[in-house]
Amino acid sequence: MNPATEELIPVHQKMEDEVKLHSFRGSPYGCRVEIALKLKGIKYEFIQEDLSNKSQDLLKYNPVYKKVPVFVHNGNPISESLVIIEYIDEVWKGVPILPQDAYTKAQARFWAKFIDEKCIPAVFKVFGSHGDEQDVAEANEQLQFLENELSVKGNKFFGGDNIGLVDICASYIAFWAGAAEEALGIELVTKDKFPKLKEWCDNCINCQVVKDGLPPRERLVAYYKWRFGKA
Amino acid sequence: MNPATEELIPVHQKMEDEVKLHSFRGSPYGCRVEIALKLKGIKYEFIQEDLSNKSQDLLKYNPVYKKVPVFVHNGNPISESLVIIEYIDEVWKGVPILPQDAYTKAQARFWAKFIDEKCIPAVFKVFGSHGDEQDVAEANEQLQFLENELSVKGNKFFGGDNIGLVDICASYIAFWAGAAEEALGIELVTKDKFPKLKEWCDNCINCQVVKDGLPPRERLVAYYKWRFGKA
Repeated sequence: MNPATEELIPVHQKMEDEVKLHSFRGSPYGCRVEIALKLKGIKYEFIQEDLSNKSQDLLKYNPVYKKVPVFVHNGNPISESLVIIEYIDEVWKGVPILPQDAYTKAQARFWAKFIDEKCIPAVFKVFGSHGDEQDVAEANEQLQFLENELSVKGNKFFGGDNIGLVDICASYIAFWAGAAEEALGIELVTKDKFPKLKEWCDNCINCQVVKDGLPPRERLVAYYKWRFGKA
Repeated sequence: MNPATEELIPVHQKMEDEVKLHSFRGSPYGCRVEIALKLKGIKYEFIQEDLSNKSQDLLKYNPVYKKVPVFVHNGNPISESLVIIEYIDEVWKGVPILPQDAYTKAQARFWAKFIDEKCIPAVFKVFGSHGDEQDVAEANEQLQFLENELSVKGNKFFGGDNIGLVDICASYIAFWAGAAEEALGIELVTKDKFPKLKEWCDNCINCQVVKDGLPPRERLVAYYKWRFGKA
């Protein structure tokens, strides 16, 4: 099929497509995949995993990490949220998740990797230490890079006018970190320090497709109160 | 240009293409990019960085990590070796580095990520601890996944008959870890424990395009003797 023609055809799922997602309600990495699936309008079966008693399927599909999310397309399992999202974007046309241009795509991959490897660990270290000053300084340093990126580009989302790969990954900062901030009474992403990032956080969690994929905030706040010893 | 036609045209570089690589001789991540460039037959300028006195260009191009390698294509900088390799594979046709099929591509991305996040840290922990038993057990556990992957697929390389993304990433295990093993008198990837992986290591470092991108082994061995306190 000519790629140019293919993009004109409305998104639809082949009748034989079997799409399953092994995850648990509230998993930030599972939610990333759910947002990607909702963006593409893909129907999927959500298979709730009990992390204290993982299913045989999960252990078979992801023997390396034994972790959710695991995405299974017509019996073929894929692990790691970034890998899954790239796969979904390649297989299903329609709303693009990664930029089409090779250089912009490389930049998106860079920021997604940065969020996972630098930003999220730095931010969650702050919660673990109940706001240790040095940890806050380190988290601020990482968050400043996201603030700069939003300022330079001047778009509503990292992906431009619509959410894309980086927004999906950074939803962790907007929603999960936001809930942990509330649970612990710690303010990290404030309007004063990070005006663009704060605005982005609001845009991100109010974006319908993200909203549809998120767990109830109050349950997450309660969970973080318990997890970080503030219950 | 029709994509089908484009692939029939031999690899050539546009006259205006300016390709630079900021790295240092012996950098395993820089070498990954060099292998990718050599695979594609891309001419590039190698800009030697002094890590104790990084160039202003490096700091400008990679303000987040301030690390090599930085790849600069017509003035556009890209950091992070995996991101760079994906970019090179997308922009220059010819010998493919990533598989064409979406699922096989996802698997390659999974293994490349695994090598960087799990395997290399586990292996280098062994050298740092001069072969601590627990560290060796953990490294063996990770290496076993690579052994299994090679056994199941039954190919010469992770990429099939020819080297691909996973082979380029795993060259760290074949060459750098091999040199550190020699420097410290530690045997990790042995024929007894990991016959397929050992065979792959030999195939990898004897592959011409890899060989051309590697630093002299004896210098690396000397470096590791010094670094790990065995000089």
